[in-house]
Amino acid sequence: MQFAFTSRVFDTETIHLADTEEQIVRGGRHLFERLPQAFDGIKKIGVIGWGSQGPAQAQNLRDSLEGTDITVTVGLRSGSRSWSQAQAAGFSEQDGTLKEMMQVVSESDMVLLLISDYAQATLYQDVFKAMKPGATLGLSHGFLIGYLNAIGASLPDNINVIGVCPKGMGPSVRRLYEQGREIGGAGINSSFAVEQDIDGKATDYAIGWSVALGSPFTFMTSLEMEYRSDIFGERGILLGAVHGIVESLYQRYVDSGMSKEDAFQHSVESVTGPISRTLSKDGILALYEQLDSTEKQRFDTAYSAAYRPALEILTEIYQEVSTGNEIRSVILAGERMQEFPMSKIDGTEMWQVGETVRAKRDPDRIPLDGFTAGIYIATMIAQIDVLCRNGHAYSEIVNESIIEAVDSLNPFMHYKGVAYMVDNCSTTARLGARKWAPRFDYHLYQLAYPAIDGGVTVDTELLETFRNHPVHQPVDVLAELRPSVDIAVQG
Amino acid sequence: MQFAFTSRVFDTETIHLADTEEQIVRGGRHLFERLPQAFDGIKKIGVIGWGSQGPAQAQNLRDSLEGTDITVTVGLRSGSRSWSQAQAAGFSEQDGTLKEMMQVVSESDMVLLLISDYAQATLYQDVFKAMKPGATLGLSHGFLIGYLNAIGASLPDNINVIGVCPKGMGPSVRRLYEQGREIGGAGINSSFAVEQDIDGKATDYAIGWSVALGSPFTFMTSLEMEYRSDIFGERGILLGAVHGIVESLYQRYVDSGMSKEDAFQHSVESVTGPISRTLSKDGILALYEQLDSTEKQRFDTAYSAAYRPALEILTEIYQEVSTGNEIRSVILAGERMQEFPMSKIDGTEMWQVGETVRAKRDPDRIPLDGFTAGIYIATMIAQIDVLCRNGHAYSEIVNESIIEAVDSLNPFMHYKGVAYMVDNCSTTARLGARKWAPRFDYHLYQLAYPAIDGGVTVDTELLETFRNHPVHQPVDVLAELRPSVDIAVQG
Repeated sequence: MQFAFTSRVFDTETIHLADTEEQIVRGGRHLFERLPQAFDGIKKIGVIGWGSQGPAQAQNLRDSLEGTDITVTVGLRSGSRSWSQAQAAGFSEQDGTLKEMMQVVSESDMVLLLISDYAQATLYQDVFKAMKPGATLGLSHGFLIGYLNAIGASLPDNINVIGVCPKGMGPSVRRLYEQGREIGGAGINSSFAVEQDIDGKATDYAIGWSVALGSPFTFMTSLEMEYRSDIFGERGILLGAVHGIVESLYQRYVDSGMSKEDAFQHSVESVTGPISRTLSKDGILALYEQLDSTEKQRFDTAYSAAYRPALEILTEIYQEVSTGNEIRSVILAGERMQEFPMSKIDGTEMWQVGETVRAKRDPDRIPLDGFTAGIYIATMIAQIDVLCRNGHAYSEIVNESIIEAVDSLNPFMHYKGVAYMVDNCSTTARLGARKWAPRFDYHLYQLAYPAIDGGVTVDTELLETFRNHPVHQPVDVLAELRPSVDIAVQG
Repeated sequence: MQFAFTSRVFDTETIHLADTEEQIVRGGRHLFERLPQAFDGIKKIGVIGWGSQGPAQAQNLRDSLEGTDITVTVGLRSGSRSWSQAQAAGFSEQDGTLKEMMQVVSESDMVLLLISDYAQATLYQDVFKAMKPGATLGLSHGFLIGYLNAIGASLPDNINVIGVCPKGMGPSVRRLYEQGREIGGAGINSSFAVEQDIDGKATDYAIGWSVALGSPFTFMTSLEMEYRSDIFGERGILLGAVHGIVESLYQRYVDSGMSKEDAFQHSVESVTGPISRTLSKDGILALYEQLDSTEKQRFDTAYSAAYRPALEILTEIYQEVSTGNEIRSVILAGERMQEFPMSKIDGTEMWQVGETVRAKRDPDRIPLDGFTAGIYIATMIAQIDVLCRNGHAYSEIVNESIIEAVDSLNPFMHYKGVAYMVDNCSTTARLGARKWAPRFDYHLYQLAYPAIDGGVTVDTELLETFRNHPVHQPVDVLAELRPSVDIAVQG
């Protein structure tokens, strides 16, 4: 087993995914009573930052630890505009649960560093210096590890370093936790990682943190695998690829004579609506089987032409991420944005058409377009193949390539539009989507479509590989481990 | 003066470019008699590689050094397919002027390393090891210096390292040299650089090399500035930007109701034809003045909307190049191309339309489109501004942003198509063009066009800055220093 671990506090289960096994922890509110044991030696938890994850994690931890002698304190920059929001959530200077960031860092036994990637890259030295020897640093994303790798720096050797990475945005982490008070199994799954364990307690600190956040299931990874799959995935099918794919399909459909509204229906609406819904409910093969013979033929053609161009770009992205190039670019962009603030992408005619289409949407009349599905699924499978080649665990592969798309991001895009999603995610993700979407678009336009229009036939071997792909079984198993409550889409 | 130098052999002149001065060397066949003095201590010159520059430089050097005791030997990999081409050009194993690469490296007093960027990155350690102490390494491009910077490696300290970088492709370097036998002043200008001078002779070695190649004028730079401006320029207006610009303009013109052939005329043909010709003959302001009031208005609108988006992407490219990220990506791509060979971009409908348009071209009826000119010139000026900000010499700025475009690449594109050019340049340039063209396209499509269609007015201050730009005077001065013979376009 690639990631094996032993907990002194929590029970573990083993799941079988294709030809691999993974160990998981099943969460639940009945386990909160074990948190003091899991957090043995920790009295003060500091949550640094009030962005997406900060508010959710600070509140979930505080609520889960109610009645224990473990306190949760929020640390913010002096003068931060988030100060009043943290107060509204019940943290206060009076009772010592809201303080200046570095003070919280220096006083905490466990420091959860939930500030932005760019802030982590610029502040990490101060944080390392301020931390107590023997304390634990918690990250919800491996970015900092990737950044340190990229610049050849390293972690201090006198602290634990762990990760708990919820598989959803902060607001969902909070909302499903609250629903979990009434509904068993509601919550956001997480992966955890132990990067550095100086006292033998790091594994239970990490699992305890995940259980306290309300994760129904917790999977293991490493922070390096996490940041690779995360940064890669958002440049791929989660955000960058889907943006490039729908831009290119919309243009192709308009060029072929469709009305603009129909072209939007057959591209964007089809992906974020019926394609995502079917993938989520029934899996990939079921989507394929649902197509009639004409649409199957269109799927086969599109899949055959798009798979290799997608695989090429995705291989490039993975290389750029794993070598640190992509992370260095994100940091450079942080500097550049002083002069060139991030611009929006939603001003094009296509997204104006989208607003009209959404306004008069009839959910039952959105087409499940076989060609669109072929391009989209080919890219998804190519992404899965790149992650498989690079040794990621199936739980991570399926999450970063399918579950997060069809259960979290695509429904949000369906509600608000792809462009809105791109314009409103994390800076690292936005930069990546804007950098790579045009590459997917051009590769389809320059390679896949000319091949199709030139009469290239269906690649039966490639489609056979698709139908027998080892990922289908893990998708089924992991579908059973999803939260009992859908990640609701809210405005 | 930023780059000042002293030659013991050649005369220098000073030119005034805006508020700067540069020292130059005027070449000519009458100076060939001084080459033995310039090459003092050098008896054997080894030219390694037979790609674009190799054949041209080996032959020009051999011809210029005829009658001296300095020999020129070509070094190739055993079994290289170029062996017979080198023989056809008069190099032979019998007379010792054609040998295995590393043998030539080890025997030469001056080693001109003209193999591909990727080969330099993989072979440089062997080359350094094989060179004689005290010998001179010559490069025609700063890529290797950039690569060593990017990976934190350094040059051996017991050799001279110099550069002579012709401002044209190898075949032109040879063809204009041959024309120069009859026509005074024919040849390709070069820049030279002295990276490491262990014996005080490196400057004259470099200038001698340039004179022997037939450069009518030789400018000074550093290899770092050279690779930055070169790799940046080909990702910018020389190749990547012009590709992205014409793709985006063509689509816009088609979407607005033009026929495909007209759209091609107003985008690609306009740039590579009348716009380039006018820029070359009369300069930037003359192009603007030639527009009638309607087209001036369209130019102003396009320029106003495109300048900042172009400046943003170009700033990003410069950062990626100067930090080594872009070079690391090129090396990664070299590995990736084992699995994914470089694909072509010329299969799209637009380039099929282009073939038809070129086949029935009437040069007098190609429109000088003000909107197209506005987008193109805005990007060109943005590129000039990025290079100015980063301290490049005006001779380099004007060459990498204007002269190489309008005198060399665009005429070739006019003859064969932009896609053909992209598909047939160096690997480093092809990779860069394919990476950045879609970014320029999307930035125009997402930022510039919506601003224009939303009724954003002309930015009079920006246009005033354009009209009074300090680059106009250097363009005029450097126009006088161009070769007397145009870089002819051949199939």
